Order: sequence, then C-alpha cells, then structure tokens
Amino acid sequence: MRIARFSLDGNVGFGVLEDVEGDGDPVLDIIRGHPFAEFERSGQKLPLGAVRLLPPVLPNKVVAIGRNYAEHARELGNEVPDAPVAFFKPSTSVVGPGDPIAYPSFSSEVHYEAELAVVIGRLCKDVPRERVKDVILGYTCANDVTARDIQRTENQWARAKGFDSACPLGPWIETELDPSDLALMCTVNGEQRQLGRTAEMVRSIEDLVVHITEAMTLLPQDVILTGTPAGVGPLNVGDEVAVTIEGIGTLTNKVIKRDY
Amino acid sequence: MRIARFSLDGNVGFGVLEDVEGDGDPVLDIIRGHPFAEFERSGQKLPLGAVRLLPPVLPNKVVAIGRNYAEHARELGNEVPDAPVAFFKPSTSVVGPGDPIAYPSFSSEVHYEAELAVVIGRLCKDVPRERVKDVILGYTCANDVTARDIQRTENQWARAKGFDSACPLGPWIETELDPSDLALMCTVNGEQRQLGRTAEMVRSIEDLVVHITEAMTLLPQDVILTGTPAGVGPLNVGDEVAVTIEGIGTLTNKVIKRDY
Repeated sequence: MRIARFSLDGNVGFGVLEDVEGDGDPVLDIIRGHPFAEFERSGQKLPLGAVRLLPPVLPNKVVAIGRNYAEHARELGNEVPDAPVAFFKPSTSVVGPGDPIAYPSFSSEVHYEAELAVVIGRLCKDVPRERVKDVILGYTCANDVTARDIQRTENQWARAKGFDSACPLGPWIETELDPSDLALMCTVNGEQRQLGRTAEMVRSIEDLVVHITEAMTLLPQDVILTGTPAGVGPLNVGDEVAVTIEGIGTLTNKVIKRDY
Repeated sequence: MRIARFSLDGNVGFGVLEDVEGDGDPVLDIIRGHPFAEFERSGQKLPLGAVRLLPPVLPNKVVAIGRNYAEHARELGNEVPDAPVAFFKPSTSVVGPGDPIAYPSFSSEVHYEAELAVVIGRLCKDVPRERVKDVILGYTCANDVTARDIQRTENQWARAKGFDSACPLGPWIETELDPSDLALMCTVNGEQRQLGRTAEMVRSIEDLVVHITEAMTLLPQDVILTGTPAGVGPLNVGDEVAVTIEGIGTLTNKVIKRDY
C-alpha cells in the first residue's frame, strides 16, 4: 500500500494510491483516521494530479547513517567505520516532493545523496532484531542533502546536513516492500549520477534499528536514513535532482537560490 | 521572571515563581495562556513544594555546542575549533529537574557537563547579531550528559549525547538575566567538580545564534546549549549531580540503573 500526504484547497489529508487500469491517471483514496493509528479508506477519491503532495511523514527526528555503503565511504577518502556513524537531521530540514531545496548561503559545495528512508510506525526502544519489522510502517525515498565543504570543516554535521530543506522525503510511504535488495538511483537533470542496490549496505536495516534504539526512543513518524551509495556530487542552482527507489517511486526537487 | 512548568494531580501548567518574604516557601503564581505566546498571571498560587517540576520547555530540537570553553577543549585533548562544533540532542533525551538519568546499557563511562541553556522564544532564521536578544525568551540550566567512551569511538555523537535522559533541563526559565558573566558549577554528591564563568565562552551567545540560524530555522521552545567549562568527569549509578548557574538556580538529577 502506498500512503501519500497531500494538500488540496487548504485541507491536508492522507490517501492510499490506487493504480488505474489502462490510460487513467492514478487516484488517491482518502483516508479516514491517521495512518500512524487506526484508519480506513473512505472510498472518496481524488486524481493524484489534482493535489499537492507533502512530505509523507512529519518526523520528530531523522536519524541518518553515514558511510553505510563501502564504495561511497571510499570515494570520500573514508574507511568503513567500526560502528555505524549516526547523526541527526532536524524536523526543520524536512521538505516534500516537488519542494525546492534552497541553496544555503554559507556553502558553495552542496551535494545530493540518494537514500532509502525507513519510516517508524510505533514508539519503540531496545528493539530486538526479530521485532524490527514490527516497528516499521514502511519506506520512502530521501535525499540527504549535504554541504560538503562545511562537512569537511565542521567536526559535527548539524549545519552541514541539518540546514532548512536538507531533507527531502517522499513521494509516499510504501508499506509492503522487501527492502533488502532494491535498486536506488539519483539523477540530476535527467543524467544518472548514483546507481546502487540496498543489498550493498554495510549494516542492514535490522542492525541500524537495534543500534539506534539501544540508545534512544524512536517515535511514530521518526525516520531512519540508511546511507548513500557511491557517486555523490554537486548540485547547482537550477538543477532538478531525482531519487528513484525500486518499488517505491521517485522524489524530485529543484535547487533554488533563496531570494528572501 | 522565573517561569516553571509543573504537574499536580495530573494537570500540567506553567507558573511564575515568587519569592516569599521571611521564612515562607516560594510559591508559583499559575499562568493563564502559554509563556511562549500571550499569558497573564492568574493570581491563583501553589506552594512550590506541592508540585512536581517538569522540564520547563519541550524543545523540538536542542542544538548543542562542543568545545566552547578553551580549558575544557584542552582537557579532552582537543584544540579550540575554528568554527563552533554544533550537534543535536533529540527531544527524546530531555528530562526535567529531579528526573532520573538512566545509565545507558551501551556505555561504561558517562560524564556530566554543566551548561547554560538558551531558550528560544520565537521562530527565527538568519538572525542578525543585533536582534539575537529579541529571539531569546530566557535561560535555564542544562546537563549535556555524555557517554564519553562512545563519543571517542563513534565519529558523530547521536548516540553518545542523544540517548534517553541525556539532556536534563531546568529547574525553570529565567527571563531577566544578563548571561555574559555568570558563575556555573557542577557538583556530584555535593562535591564541586566544575566551576567556570560564562565569560570564558569562546563564542558568545550572539555568535552562536547567528551561526546556527544562518543554517536552520529555530522554533519557539528550541534550546541552545552553550558548552561546558573544564572539570568534566564520570557519573556512577547512585550519584546525585547538580548544575547551578548564578541568577538561575540548581538542576539536580540522580543517576539510576534502568531495571526494565
């Protein structure tokens, strides 16, 4: 099931995406209730093209993992770390599909990083490996946008990876998906820049949930970013960057210069 | 003005602390409204001793600054960095005065770090230096509790400084205070371990707000931790740790072993 969050005429809601046979546009079956609690489909439908998609989830925190694909760690001159490199991206960095990535004033080297995002469905702490699947609601695409120059000069990455619009998420949450070996790709202006498979992750999603929840409580709507494959590179103002993950869809954002 | 958040008989509220002349206990004048919006004193009063104090603020994010006192940077073998070291502590790490600090299972070297906490009063981004005072509601005490062993082995500090109960805040927000030269102290079981002055900060509060909001939006109730002076050291199960800041008060927490 694909759950999208949308706005239309000032209303904000969730809907379940339905494929339409033949040439028809996809439609959203509007949800009654909330996807992180009890809900049902209303049967009231909207064409996908009529709504504005929003970030499918409003995380309290995003826990991101660095250097989780060996080839990417090496391309930046790093070893694969002994322990997962876990850092936070704040809720204020989250934007949705189609939203602009505002080029930050303090950087001149902003990079894309295509990543599989895990959407947490329940409050959890100290999750045992065999229960990890029970705390996950689904998966979406993420772009771990990074001010690479600032990442090199600032020991901790709060500014380099936490600036406003540094965390595009979307286009929707896919709840039925085996995440263990999915193709993930990043294109810039239609040209392929990253192509990897989630099977290349150094630490699996199970490893990451165990590692993170050993320390901290995760809340419904929290998100884990699972690392990026090799091929990271610069974004420039005007670029259109797209993250595509097999079985989920495509998250597209345009890079803009902030005017005010 | 000192604004405390409290619970009593299942109600949660805010109150303004009033000193009582002579030998009387302090009282809280209950607030109507919310201290981060419009509010007034109700005139309805409760003895401070009758309520349970809660974290005075529920931050969406805590932005903490490392190595902002030169002598502390050196005691851990670090140089004073060229740029402030900014990292996040998540909302799930916040506890209040009197709440336990639960010793994390994955560490065997947990340290106290006494810090002045800045409480943000308004949504803000790109704050100019001369407007910094306008976005601050007040100040409170913080303990930037740190799993020092994990901080040494994990390149980013999400687990080392972000575990549940790693961010005690309180006992209340002091809204009328010149923060530029305050004594701050940490004691463990009544013995002094840290004693510094906020005047020793490498970067001032103005510097920090400008630096952080250059990158990201701060929201009302967000908190900035301004770094710790020299003298950090271990906490053990059973210890009572107290952070005292001149003009604010004392934040006391006991270290416990989590049983479940």
